[in-house]
Amino acid sequence: MNYKMMGKFISRILLVEAVFMVPALLISIFKGETKSIVGFVSSIVIILVLAGIMMLLCGNSPKAFYAREGLVCVGISWIVMSLLGCLPFFISGEIPDFMDALFETVSGFTTTGATVMSEIEDMAYGILYWRSFTHWLGGMGVLVLVLAISSGGDSKSGFTMHLLRAESPGPKVGKLVPKMKTTAEILYAIYIILTVLNILFLLIGKMPLFDAVCTAFGTAGTGGFGIKNDSIAGYSPYLQNVCTVFMLLFGVNFSCYYMIIIKQIKSVWKDEELRFYVGMVVASIVLIAWNIRGFYGTIGETVRHAAFQVASIVTTTGFATTDFDLWPTLSKMILLMLMLVGACAGSTGGGFKFARLLLILKSIRRNVRQVLQPQKIQVVRVNGQPVDEKILDNTNAYLAIYVIIIVISCILIAVDGFSMTTNISAVIACFNNVGPGFEAVGATCNFAAFGYFSKLVLIVDMLAGRLEIIPIFILFSGAAWRHR
Amino acid sequence: MNYKMMGKFISRILLVEAVFMVPALLISIFKGETKSIVGFVSSIVIILVLAGIMMLLCGNSPKAFYAREGLVCVGISWIVMSLLGCLPFFISGEIPDFMDALFETVSGFTTTGATVMSEIEDMAYGILYWRSFTHWLGGMGVLVLVLAISSGGDSKSGFTMHLLRAESPGPKVGKLVPKMKTTAEILYAIYIILTVLNILFLLIGKMPLFDAVCTAFGTAGTGGFGIKNDSIAGYSPYLQNVCTVFMLLFGVNFSCYYMIIIKQIKSVWKDEELRFYVGMVVASIVLIAWNIRGFYGTIGETVRHAAFQVASIVTTTGFATTDFDLWPTLSKMILLMLMLVGACAGSTGGGFKFARLLLILKSIRRNVRQVLQPQKIQVVRVNGQPVDEKILDNTNAYLAIYVIIIVISCILIAVDGFSMTTNISAVIACFNNVGPGFEAVGATCNFAAFGYFSKLVLIVDMLAGRLEIIPIFILFSGAAWRHR
Repeated sequence: MNYKMMGKFISRILLVEAVFMVPALLISIFKGETKSIVGFVSSIVIILVLAGIMMLLCGNSPKAFYAREGLVCVGISWIVMSLLGCLPFFISGEIPDFMDALFETVSGFTTTGATVMSEIEDMAYGILYWRSFTHWLGGMGVLVLVLAISSGGDSKSGFTMHLLRAESPGPKVGKLVPKMKTTAEILYAIYIILTVLNILFLLIGKMPLFDAVCTAFGTAGTGGFGIKNDSIAGYSPYLQNVCTVFMLLFGVNFSCYYMIIIKQIKSVWKDEELRFYVGMVVASIVLIAWNIRGFYGTIGETVRHAAFQVASIVTTTGFATTDFDLWPTLSKMILLMLMLVGACAGSTGGGFKFARLLLILKSIRRNVRQVLQPQKIQVVRVNGQPVDEKILDNTNAYLAIYVIIIVISCILIAVDGFSMTTNISAVIACFNNVGPGFEAVGATCNFAAFGYFSKLVLIVDMLAGRLEIIPIFILFSGAAWRHR
Repeated sequence: MNYKMMGKFISRILLVEAVFMVPALLISIFKGETKSIVGFVSSIVIILVLAGIMMLLCGNSPKAFYAREGLVCVGISWIVMSLLGCLPFFISGEIPDFMDALFETVSGFTTTGATVMSEIEDMAYGILYWRSFTHWLGGMGVLVLVLAISSGGDSKSGFTMHLLRAESPGPKVGKLVPKMKTTAEILYAIYIILTVLNILFLLIGKMPLFDAVCTAFGTAGTGGFGIKNDSIAGYSPYLQNVCTVFMLLFGVNFSCYYMIIIKQIKSVWKDEELRFYVGMVVASIVLIAWNIRGFYGTIGETVRHAAFQVASIVTTTGFATTDFDLWPTLSKMILLMLMLVGACAGSTGGGFKFARLLLILKSIRRNVRQVLQPQKIQVVRVNGQPVDEKILDNTNAYLAIYVIIIVISCILIAVDGFSMTTNISAVIACFNNVGPGFEAVGATCNFAAFGYFSKLVLIVDMLAGRLEIIPIFILFSGAAWRHR
């Protein structure tokens, strides 16, 4: 293990985290929230001291860096980042229980949006800002950010490659351009532009600036922390529709936006994952709108709620405009299925990803064909290109781990004795970084009632879901830590 | 498509079915059940006429027979067998709705044991016998039986091989001896011996002969149709324990028994699937017994109920001695997980099978190791033998289809508006051939309330589960029917 290089990298992440706490601190000062000011100042000091010690200890590191070290580094970074990121909540006393504060922070960074809070509007502004900001930072990934802003970059390309691979969602690494640093820069540029556009459209609808910024953070990261007790339900239909559109936009593979920028619109149009995503979204909205007819006054309102909830769930955001737990079972089952699938690869959304589902469906078709015609060699193609068997293998293995983690987690949190639907949907909602589930963890409820053990299980699920399992899995694997 | 050969084979299956209706008819005559006599006599006549017509039409068939024809043949056989097997229920008027009668019959042949009946003790003896017998016939497989008793056999080894492969459960075909016909004979010999032993042990416990025979049929086929309204709850603790032991025995890979017969006990002892199965059963019993402490008077009673329900669910039988829907969530989640896993490959049980789970877990470990050490080639081994990559591929693909079928079925039957737990457990219980689920389809309830469409979906699920998906999948695939 190249501990020194890992230490150096993690200390840089901590610096970034401390810097990003400053705006939250300024808001607290501006609003005169004493407890929050204490919380942020002490958190920043603690983080800076820790980062300083790590930098001193990890002075000269060897250059060699292996894949497993990249994975371990990402896993540890996220855990450290969460442990320190929860300090403002805890020190300010806004979330007096440390496990709850950690749950809330992991839920933020992993863009899950599952909350332990019920009275959200009572929280201090600085704290609310930081809570929403964790979504934005976790959405595109803090390691990607560090790569984008750090100098040097590709001289250590093995290093950056391993890190980006571990933090970026989807079956393949979306390398837009040959240089990893440039890829990271482009991704963040698109991310910032879309976020700013989102804020502008919300401001046009007369949403207050603070609300607009926080809501846009939650939308951009596909997180789902709202700053109101009723999530988005209290805002105007226009604002709800803006959220719907932007949630869907942030669920698209960012390489599509890059293709549009470099004017390869045709390849975007033909992208099979995008078509699959759009098709499923439209089909789900139509089915649910039909299924909940009569629940709301007008067809327009029905479609608006259906579209909002579909967009919110499929992109794994988790905002709500209505209590979809009251909808008929068919609608709830469709939402549960969308939770499992999640958004597109290379987006800020979580879940299994449409790209993987596409590969799985195509390899099933290949498998059936091979039974029928054993002589013929069948190749799986996506967007006309043959897919490497290695990627198919990994996707299948991913599905297997994915299913097993869900089943084991459901059993573990069953010790708390909640209903089966609560348990299953809580695990699926956390593991896929969605946020709300059904029944006791439904859109109008929260995760506070779970015990410490269950919260810990769900924290691991959220991290495993956000980092696509392997980096977290490897932390628990002896093989990764053994010296060779 | 070699329709003539398929027709000849199916006509033989129909003959077997007609012959097996004779004991049920005799019971009806002995008990003087007029309606049942009419039901069986007309069913037998209809089946014989149909079989005769098919035999005449399919006189001289070409010998060539391909894998896809084997699969299609198995799929059609099971559907035809079910459509005709439900006639006694329907004609006798015991199940006046044809869809219900079909559901009950498919549930019988696929050894699911999900019932639409509530007043089971009101049914005629002949009908009850036939209902339980479908489990016994479906458990080991009627095609396997036809292979075992038909002459010729291995002259058409491609034919028999394709059929046995399609009907036998598990990732590999358990070819005990080089000749398929002999393998089929051995399997049925073991099956009959174990069934007779089961009946004897039940008789020793003073169970009436009729009850013992029917209960043994349900146990041997891991089916779960009881002949009492309260399933097995009314029998003595001794009888319940006999059922527990025999359910577990029928969930073991039958090749283990063959190994014991040819005195290779060491290889049985070292069999990884068997160890996994025994380990999971023991662990589940201990956990559930601890979880339901206080529910029953004594520790002995608690362990008895825990062991019975674990055995019943893991082997996908579905008998019950108590309403486990009232147990705490942890116990129910463990049972739900056992439903998903199912019994051992090469047993009469359904589900995903321990052998496949073992392969999946081992290939996950391989996958993680390969991330850690990309240079090293890793081989998956079971019982010390390297596993063919082809089998691993198929197992992964199986998991994928398995998950997708469950998700899609849950959405389809959601149109009936039952609770999510009811829906999910109904699909899992049918697809894995378990029988009872939770809530509205719990141990004390039945499937009668579902609509026609949902029943049809569940019928397809039961067949797909029993035949391990591919034969049913292929019936719906255009590629199988296209001429080459």
